[in-house]
Amino acid sequence: MAAKFIPDPDFERRVRASFARQNAMTAIGAELTLVTPGIVEIEMPHSSSFTQQHGYLHAGVIAMALDSACGYAAFSMMPPDAGVLTIEFKVNLLAPGRGDRFLFRGSVTKPGRTIVVADGQAYGMAADGEARLIATMTGTMMTVIGRQGVEG
Amino acid sequence: MAAKFIPDPDFERRVRASFARQNAMTAIGAELTLVTPGIVEIEMPHSSSFTQQHGYLHAGVIAMALDSACGYAAFSMMPPDAGVLTIEFKVNLLAPGRGDRFLFRGSVTKPGRTIVVADGQAYGMAADGEARLIATMTGTMMTVIGRQGVEG
Amino acid sequence: MAAKFIPDPDFERRVRASFARQNAMTAIGAELTLVTPGIVEIEMPHSSSFTQQHGYLHAGVIAMALDSACGYAAFSMMPPDAGVLTIEFKVNLLAPGRGDRFLFRGSVTKPGRTIVVADGQAYGMAADGEARLIATMTGTMMTVIGRQGVEG
Amino acid sequence: MAAKFIPDPDFERRVRASFARQNAMTAIGAELTLVTPGIVEIEMPHSSSFTQQHGYLHAGVIAMALDSACGYAAFSMMPPDAGVLTIEFKVNLLAPGRGDRFLFRGSVTKPGRTIVVADGQAYGMAADGEARLIATMTGTMMTVIGRQGVEG
Repeated sequence: MAAKFIPDPDFERRVRASFARQNAMTAIGAELTLVTPGIVEIEMPHSSSFTQQHGYLHAGVIAMALDSACGYAAFSMMPPDAGVLTIEFKVNLLAPGRGDRFLFRGSVTKPGRTIVVADGQAYGMAADGEARLIATMTGTMMTVIGRQGVEG
Repeated sequence: MAAKFIPDPDFERRVRASFARQNAMTAIGAELTLVTPGIVEIEMPHSSSFTQQHGYLHAGVIAMALDSACGYAAFSMMPPDAGVLTIEFKVNLLAPGRGDRFLFRGSVTKPGRTIVVADGQAYGMAADGEARLIATMTGTMMTVIGRQGVEG
Repeated sequence: MAAKFIPDPDFERRVRASFARQNAMTAIGAELTLVTPGIVEIEMPHSSSFTQQHGYLHAGVIAMALDSACGYAAFSMMPPDAGVLTIEFKVNLLAPGRGDRFLFRGSVTKPGRTIVVADGQAYGMAADGEARLIATMTGTMMTVIGRQGVEG
Repeated sequence: MAAKFIPDPDFERRVRASFARQNAMTAIGAELTLVTPGIVEIEMPHSSSFTQQHGYLHAGVIAMALDSACGYAAFSMMPPDAGVLTIEFKVNLLAPGRGDRFLFRGSVTKPGRTIVVADGQAYGMAADGEARLIATMTGTMMTVIGRQGVEG
């Protein structure tokens, strides 16, 4: 598979431009910290504005950042004229969303012309730098070409 | 099952108090609009602060509101001293997150002493009131009793 | 959506012919008992050859029959020259796989040109006819046209 | 977590005894080929009795073997008097179920007193030994103690 895959040389610019248009990422204070073909990382500080009832990061915020990480990991391997859509994802919450900062990694498990499957991990990072796995995602993404309104 | 289930008469107050502590719900402008034993609805207006790159509501925000709706549907059937935790959920995105307002419904499919399974639907509502199914969720919730920090 | 959908008049023959080629359905003793556009039902007797360690029907057998029910529900709405592939599914086991017979229903939740989402329910039926919901599935199916080896 | 986990020294015998009671594993020709604390592998030859309509291994059979691999990976880390139940799983089908033999690996991602999360991979192996990833699973398993009929 690797032999057949020739990444768009412009993948990083495309990923960063699309991410910059995701207002939801700005709202939660998330930043792109790694963009390589097939792997994308997003980080955000803890924010008391996005907690659930026990004071931990809301599972939906974890899903939001993991979905963007997985979606852009998929998008990084798509052709230049493609848009990316999430078909579905599943998230397992493994530990409370506790941490000073959070790291979300998305990696492509199975590239494909139409369907791309990506897996993600979310980590809560303590002030001393210790990281704890707090959630995993499996997401199914779709390459969309030539559909108006679905560019990037 | 119904024969054995006696709802806590105070369920609505408990659900509303816990929801009020979810800062993430305040952040996205979400409100509780229905609380019955086993069914909870949440509504929110469209917000351009929580869009993805094509201008639609971010899939993660849809997941966030569906998770709260499913979690509180489960919580509404739990004993008075219980806390609720999400173990995992899966979301299928069926149509773009477009709408003037959004409605998220969570319903308990299978109550249980420890594990509760709930299903959710998300609708985008146009200005003329037409509703469109935009996503579904299946979530697995856990009843937690006597764990410090997991009250409500 | 319904307005735009014109079912292939030959859908039932196509579904039955494809089901007949699924040796796995023969192996577990499963039969097609309902085929309508968008809804398919499969039934099977309890078989002690397909139990798990506690003597209940194995979760994987439940998944197998639900996957076929959901897949053929999707296939029943596809064009005559299409093949159907399962992209992914999630199963929640709600009660032990106990019963004299089992009924598996798959229904299309969201038709689509490429992606079809279907939901399924599995019931264990006692000798007296009482049915109990034992599992649910959400599956994502894909319409495949013109790929050799993926006909029907 | 590892520091706190003391495996039952008898884990392998317990896993093998429980697996031997899964008639469904016998039916599909599956064998346990690796049992370590937290990782279990199952192998089976291709069987034309368990194919779907295109002649590939049925997705449900892949789910069945992955569920057993993930369930026993979880069970291997449980206390001696526990039984294991699958709460839910999700399977992504990444490539056709083609191969002379199939290998299914289940690994514990997150141990826990009540809830154990395991991830699985399924490989199709060609006659020349080349392995291809055909599916992944994430499963949520539950430790059950003292429930009649759920031993092992």
